Formats: sequence, C-alpha cells, structure tokens
Amino acid sequence: MELARRRGFFWPSYEIYGGVGGFLDFGPVGLALKRKIEDKWRDFFLRRHGFLEIETPIITPQKVFEASGHVEGFKDPMTECKACGRKYRVDHLLSDAGAQNAESMMLAELGQELKSRAIRCPECSGELSVPIYARTMFQTTIGPYTDSVGYGRPEAAQGIFVNFRRLHEVARERFPIGIGQIGHALRNEISPRQGPLRLREFTIMEFEFFFDHEEPRCPRLSEVENTEIAVLPLRSDTEKYENTIRTTVRGAIEKKLIIMEWMAYFMALSQQFITELGIPPDRQRFNEKLPTERAHYSAQTFDQEILLDRWGWTEVSGHAYRTSYDLSKHIEYSGVDMRVFRPFNKPVEVEEKRLVPIVDAIRRDFAENSTRVLELLQEADPAAAEKSLLESGLFRAGDFTLTPDHIRILSSKKKETGKRIIPHVVEPSFGAERLAYAAMEYAYSIKEDRIILSLPASLAPFQAVVLPLVTKNDLVNEAAQIYRDLLERKFDVYYDEVGSIGRRYARADEIGVPLAVTIDYETLDDGTVTARERDSWKQMRIHKSELFKFMEEKLQIH
Amino acid sequence: MELARRRGFFWPSYEIYGGVGGFLDFGPVGLALKRKIEDKWRDFFLRRHGFLEIETPIITPQKVFEASGHVEGFKDPMTECKACGRKYRVDHLLSDAGAQNAESMMLAELGQELKSRAIRCPECSGELSVPIYARTMFQTTIGPYTDSVGYGRPEAAQGIFVNFRRLHEVARERFPIGIGQIGHALRNEISPRQGPLRLREFTIMEFEFFFDHEEPRCPRLSEVENTEIAVLPLRSDTEKYENTIRTTVRGAIEKKLIIMEWMAYFMALSQQFITELGIPPDRQRFNEKLPTERAHYSAQTFDQEILLDRWGWTEVSGHAYRTSYDLSKHIEYSGVDMRVFRPFNKPVEVEEKRLVPIVDAIRRDFAENSTRVLELLQEADPAAAEKSLLESGLFRAGDFTLTPDHIRILSSKKKETGKRIIPHVVEPSFGAERLAYAAMEYAYSIKEDRIILSLPASLAPFQAVVLPLVTKNDLVNEAAQIYRDLLERKFDVYYDEVGSIGRRYARADEIGVPLAVTIDYETLDDGTVTARERDSWKQMRIHKSELFKFMEEKLQIH
Repeated sequence: MELARRRGFFWPSYEIYGGVGGFLDFGPVGLALKRKIEDKWRDFFLRRHGFLEIETPIITPQKVFEASGHVEGFKDPMTECKACGRKYRVDHLLSDAGAQNAESMMLAELGQELKSRAIRCPECSGELSVPIYARTMFQTTIGPYTDSVGYGRPEAAQGIFVNFRRLHEVARERFPIGIGQIGHALRNEISPRQGPLRLREFTIMEFEFFFDHEEPRCPRLSEVENTEIAVLPLRSDTEKYENTIRTTVRGAIEKKLIIMEWMAYFMALSQQFITELGIPPDRQRFNEKLPTERAHYSAQTFDQEILLDRWGWTEVSGHAYRTSYDLSKHIEYSGVDMRVFRPFNKPVEVEEKRLVPIVDAIRRDFAENSTRVLELLQEADPAAAEKSLLESGLFRAGDFTLTPDHIRILSSKKKETGKRIIPHVVEPSFGAERLAYAAMEYAYSIKEDRIILSLPASLAPFQAVVLPLVTKNDLVNEAAQIYRDLLERKFDVYYDEVGSIGRRYARADEIGVPLAVTIDYETLDDGTVTARERDSWKQMRIHKSELFKFMEEKLQIH
Repeated sequence: MELARRRGFFWPSYEIYGGVGGFLDFGPVGLALKRKIEDKWRDFFLRRHGFLEIETPIITPQKVFEASGHVEGFKDPMTECKACGRKYRVDHLLSDAGAQNAESMMLAELGQELKSRAIRCPECSGELSVPIYARTMFQTTIGPYTDSVGYGRPEAAQGIFVNFRRLHEVARERFPIGIGQIGHALRNEISPRQGPLRLREFTIMEFEFFFDHEEPRCPRLSEVENTEIAVLPLRSDTEKYENTIRTTVRGAIEKKLIIMEWMAYFMALSQQFITELGIPPDRQRFNEKLPTERAHYSAQTFDQEILLDRWGWTEVSGHAYRTSYDLSKHIEYSGVDMRVFRPFNKPVEVEEKRLVPIVDAIRRDFAENSTRVLELLQEADPAAAEKSLLESGLFRAGDFTLTPDHIRILSSKKKETGKRIIPHVVEPSFGAERLAYAAMEYAYSIKEDRIILSLPASLAPFQAVVLPLVTKNDLVNEAAQIYRDLLERKFDVYYDEVGSIGRRYARADEIGVPLAVTIDYETLDDGTVTARERDSWKQMRIHKSELFKFMEEKLQIH
C-alpha cells in the first residue's frame, strides 16, 4: 500500500478533502498495470473464443433492475448507531465478533445475534438499531428534478441481457455465444473496508455465455479436463465441507460438484488466467456459495479465491450459473420475445390434435348454456378430452358433461424444423482493481532492503527503461535515439535521466520494469549498451543492433 | 444511423423498454472503432508529449464540485409544461423558434422571450412555466440512506485537479506537465436531442496542461505555427464576427485571437487529430464562445466544430483556458497547498523591510492607547511607513500620529532561489462517441447502391476479413490456418464463412474493413490468395507468403 501510494499505482480518492471510503484513484503506472490486466482478460476470454464485446451505460432506468430483481434483491443488512448515526453492515459486525456464517443469516436472525452478543457501535459504543435491509445501488433521477428513478449499475450483465436480441441478430444468430463487457460498476456499500478490495466504484470484467441447456456439452472441455482445481463444495443446502477437495475438472463434473460443463470450462480458464497474473494454482480455490449466500439469480455459484498475505482468502472472480433467469424476466417485463430459434438436425414430425365442437348438437342439448359450453371447449385440452372420451365415453367441461355426439377430436401431422428456447447463461465476473492489487502483492519482494516488484513482463507498466549513465550531452542524445527507436517498434518504454543511476534502477525495480537499458561511454565507442534484469540484477552488454531481438526474447513477445 | 443500428455499431440504449433519451449502447464493431479513436487520442496527445494518464471515480463527493463551482454553475435554463409535465431547455425552444443567441441569454431574458414569442409546449401546446435553472449533474448519496451527497462527474478534469499535488510528486516535479484521463462522464440533460451527439453518459477524453503563466512561451509552437486554421472570433464581449478568419496559428497569436500559445499549439494538434479521423481541415473551424456562453472557469474558450451533413456545425472538442481557477479553488476549499516551486535560473536577492516599534517611547507618548497603537503597527506596511516618514516626518496609524521617535524601519537582504506559483491550465476536451459518429458520417458513401464505410485503416473495426470462397473442407481448413497466422502476427482480423462471397464482401464494406483475403481453389494449387480492397473493389492475387508484407503496406502499419 505504501509503495502503491508513493509510486503512483493507486491511492484513496479525494485525499485532499480527507478521503471518501470505497474509492480509488489509479495513477500512471497503476493504470498501465490495470489496463494490461484488462487487455489480457479480453484476449484470454473474449478474443480466443470469438466472443462479442459491447459497452453500455452505467446509468440504468429503474425498470431494468425491477425486471432483473435487483431493486428487490440487491441489498445488505444495515444497522445504525442511535448515538452517532454511523451505519454498519450487520454481518460484518457479527463476523468481527466471532459469529459463523453471518453472511447467510436472515434479517431476524441477524437482529437476535446482535442483541444476544450485546454488540454496540464500534466507534462510540452507542446502541445499535434493529437491522434493516439497505439497497446498495446508487440511486439518482434521469433528467433533473424528475421522478424517473435510475440506478448506477452494480454489474455490467444487464446491459448485455437487455441487448440480447439485437446482438443475436448482429452476430447472425451464431449460437452458443459469449458477450462480454468491461466497464465501471457502482455498489453503494454501507461502510466499505478492506481498502482496495471492497470498492464502491470499480472496473468489472464479465461475460455472459448463452447456450441451450438441453445441449449442455462443452466441446472444449477436453482442453482443460485434466487441470487440477481445488474446490470447497457444499455438503448440503445449509452446510459446507471444511476442507477443499483437489480434483481434476473432469472429476469435479463427474462428482457433480460443478453442475454445468461450460461453467467448469470457464473456471479452469480462470485458474489459468489468475496464474498468468503471477498467483500460483496452489494459492487458489473455488469456494461454493450456500443458497443463502448466492445472488438471487443463481442456481450455483463459485467464488474463485486466492490467498492474500494481508486479507486472507479473497474473492477474485465469481462464477454463477444464472440459468434463463435474467432473459426470462426481461421477456416478461418488456414483452419482447428474446427466444432463440434452434433448428433440429432434421425436421421432426409432431401430431397436433384439435377439438372440434359439433355446434348443432350442443345447441340442441344445452339450450341457453350452449354459449358457455362452447367457451369452455375453446380452453379445453384436446388430448385430455380424447383420453376421457376413450376411457369413459364422457368429457366434463366445467359443470357440463359432453358425449362423442358433441365433440370430435381431429389429428393432423406437422413438421417442426426446430424449437424456440430461452438460452441459459453461465457468467464469469472479475474486478480489475482487485486483480491489480493481487498481482502487486504476489510480485512484491524485498532484496537487500530494496523493494522489487517482479510483475510478469506482460503486466509490467513498462517493458523497459532507457537510461543515460550520466546527463552528458552525447550520452543523452544517444539514449534519446535508442528510446525513440524502441517507441517506434511499439515497445512500451520510458526514458529517465533524473538522479543517480542506482536510484533510477531502484525506481524501475519498484514499479516492476523488467529491463533497463543503460547508455554509457562504451556505447559511444563500440555500440554496446548495458542490459540489466530487474529480478536478478544481472547486467550484460548487448550490441544495440541486437537490442530488439534481445528484448523480444527476454519479454517473451510473440 | 440505420447502418449503425443494423451492423451493431451503436443504437439507443434500453430499446426493449422503449428507450431512454441520451444513452447509447456500443456494439462490437462500434466499440472497436471507438476504442481505436481513444487509442489514437492517447498516442496523439499524451504519449507523444510524455503526459501522464490517470483514472479516477465517476462518483464525486459534493465538496469537490462546491469548490470547483459546478454545484453553483453547472446548470441549464429549464421550463416545465404546466399541462403535461414535460421539461424543456428554454434556449433550445427559443432557438427552434428562430431566436438568435438564446444560449447566451440570462434567465429573465429567456423568460421574457418565451412570453413575447408566445411559445407553448411543443408536445401538448400547454402553458410553460417561468424558467428556472436546473442543475444538470446526476445526484446521489454516497452510502445508502445517508445525507452525504455525491454527483456523477460531468467532466474528468476535477479528478485531475484534486490529485495535482500527488501527481506532481509522482512525476518528480516535472513542469510544465500534462495530465489526462479517458472515462465516462455524466450530464443529466433536461431533454436530450440530436441522437448520438448529446448524450447523458459519454466517454470524455481530456487533459489538463499545467504551466507557469509568467513563462507562457510554448517551445513546440514552431512545429505547428504555419498550420492554417479557421477561426470565428469575438468582435467584443457581446458580439461575434459573422465570418471565419483563415489564418496561420502564428497569425492567430499575433492578432491576439488566441491568448495563450499553449492553447494555440493544442488547437493546431486537434485539427490534425480530427483530420486523421477522415474529416478534412476545410470542414473544421474554431468557434470562440462569448463570455456568457463560456463555462464559469474559463478565460477564453474555443469550440472546435466540424460540418456534419445531418446536424450542421457541431462541436467535437472544447479548448478552455481555465487559468489557475480550479487549483486556486481547491487550495482554498481543502486548505492543502498545491503550489509548485519554480526555481529561478540563479538566486535573486530581495530586500525585506521590517517595522520595529520603540515600545518605551510609545508607552510614554500614548499612555493607555499604547496597546492599540502597537496592534495597529503590527498590521502596517513597513514600506509605506518608511515612505511617509521620509516625506513628512510623520506616519499615521489609525487615529494616531507617530514620529521617527516611535518606529524604526530595518532593511535586510534575502536570497530567493525560486517562487511558489499556482499553475495555469489549458484544457482540450473531446467526446469519443461523437467522434465515432463523425468518422462514420465522413466515411459513408454509396457505390452502385451499396454502402461503403471508408474509415481510415487505423480506425477500422478490423483490418481484414479472411474468407473461404465456399464452405468446402479443404478451403475452410486453409482459410482457418491463414486466419490463425494473421491473429498470431497481431493483425486485427475476423473470419467469415456465412453466406455468398458477394454478401460477405458487402458486409465487410459496410463495417469498414479495408481488406478482404479470399481463399479459393487456386490457393490450394499455387498458394496465392485474392486480396480485395474495400474502396476500389480491386482484386489482386498475392502469394500467401507475401501476405503479411502486403497487408502492412496497404494498412500503412509502422
């Protein structure tokens, strides 16, 4: 944290005004790191699968979140100190006091626990109010001084769901298909803690993978089926296992620990992705959430967690099986048909039955009730009527009993070329700021009292720094030329001439720059430069004509 | 607009719910175009100057915008229909009715005009209310159910200003310096019109250039001084010239049309930037804003405008000379010293005067008033006292007259190595969505009844498409291999096998893909592919081993 602040990775927002909890500013090197994580995520999940990426607004009208269930369901239990007015998350207070599973308690239970443990305001020891649910979305109005309520989106997913029909068209009905989005999300946390981990505004990276749950096979599963993962599964709907189970992805599916192949496939990729950020697999696990801990839309959820020095096991991604919940809700609330047509391999012949009333006979036998009888027959199930007539010779419609004189059942054959389905969805979801913090913590080490940030080369804010040994004109000119050449070749480099060479190396080590290229008097004599490696502090002389190749190899580009 | 919607560039948000004015969704190709504009902007303005880039939150606490003046000043004149409740921007209604300069009228004047022109609700002809100012920021609370007001930022600039001190440190006091930001901004427009141009949520790209206004020379001006620009300047504080003046950048500075060299330099770059988006300089102009049209923080503002077929002259960037306004305000409101130390070339000797009261003499001559006299002397200006004593032998402090018996003036020499200044700022500011629309309009043409989107190769959503002539296995395999090779070489390509080759070419033309690479039976025989150019529809055969080089040349990469 001290390094992050001092070197301009990130720091709490609005510090000149005393700060506001839950917001972070990203400075130049932190933003470069964060953006490289975003680019890697895009390559890793979207580009490799040919998934679509879109960008939709943060401000969202109320009806979208009414349909999605967030207006009702996106809430946390809150208590307020009657003395000082501070607000707290009840489950956090209880966890601090040693309660187990506070996250999965209902409101009444939380209130009882608060009382029985005699918990008071941590700041002023005042009495705490009875817990209520607080909706943790930022609320506003669309248009000034209107009553058109809008919210800041707490997830990017709804922007994808409401556009599913258009995107399905734009993608020329490719199916199954993934659609992703990277952008800011807002969560109006009651009292955010854990510094960079629990933010009120953060960059979400998530995609929705739409598929037919009647064809749930994932054809790419074979690519990852032998990957070992650690799972902390549920024993029952109310109980977790205490220890993680190590298993292959294939094993997790066979043991029904993961109920959807596609979800298992993306979980395996997520483990690989997090590993590429510098966090080894044995510091990762998948923690299944209890039904009471899951979001309202999810049939199964795993949090991918990593072990952080400072914060313990910490969620870095969520994997939710959202089923057809969201699309169904938006179809219901908007009236727009967003079903997908799935052609059969070959057309299927289906039998269609029709119930035909014999009107003259009905009029004759039911007189003034005949209109009512005809109405009832319109709603009757032809198959049920046929069955009843066959078995008993009679069919009851409402209060009336009919015979084969009154109705006839006709059958016809029809060819169906496919079916309309509401796709099911699995969703992997990540937060970019948290990943930047995690990558930094795992990259951080101290060597001879100096900090080295051994970020993977593909994440480093810069690939190299170019340094003149001293600020003499001829060295500076030569260094500037090499710097420009590297920039032109699209290397991500910076130039530094401020301070002693030792301090400049130290600075580069602290911001995680893998290579330093130093121009000295030998460079002017024989064209060689000093290349210095961040992690080993090894120095070697390279001819400048070899520099591009040397750097590509060291940085493992291509 | 039809093309944008059909091909998935962009479309109005929340369309399944009937839409909400002022929001746009960007689909896959539109997002690719928009992101390439952002990247080009970053290269063009930030990277080439070594400027910093940061990312700060959208949600901003009230005190930041109190200090910046936005709580008071970020507002538009609004009227409400007394019958149907619809809300309108008064200046827009008046402009529609033919009024001149409605944008610069004060509230009372707007009300009078509304009355004298007998303007009624455009929707229901109802009576309109007396205009009021509506604050056009999205308002919310930070923390649920609190009274801690926050706003969605209407500009990214304040996130830069409040961080100036930390960034100045991180950049090791480099000065002058530019600091930029790309991110979403929110403006709660009263009733947004003009489709993609006036959005309630958009991507702002802006940077603040901090400099010492006592050293206002821009050393890079010579690079652009002969650039011709068209300026629509002010004749006076209340009047504009009617015709644009064509002048060089140097000429605009000499004629004092542009009052700051740095602003002129960035305006010249902006013209070049917009030109690279495909909009020629003769469709661009710089429209100076009247004092009543300028933002509250600006001493001079130019809107860079381009001529659009559909919307006429349209702002694409704003250039404001914000002076030291924002930093001064944040220094005042936060109490944090954000001044910058500017060393002199060599230390300067300054004379310091001190007024020393001779207490015994004062006690003797002023008796019970002596305390009051001593107080007054503490606030007196030593230089003024010395002057008065020299000229008249007397010095009056309040009601008391003193002589050289009572006070002595001491002089001492002091060396000053520099001064502390509050930097001045010029700010260029762009909106990415608007630029994407503008680039598309200028790229749009119709040839033989077919749409071609001739986007510059550097902006095209894809650089090329790879097509098997027909979907036979051997062609598909060969095409897939070439596609993978191109991806590996970091070309931005897609693969398409759906539909006839003619329809696939047409699709590529419509989304602006400069090159198509077709694999046919000749490819299997002799290794050549067909390369087709979007704009000329010319086809040529290239050996696949030459493809990378051919594409780099055609796309002007490097």
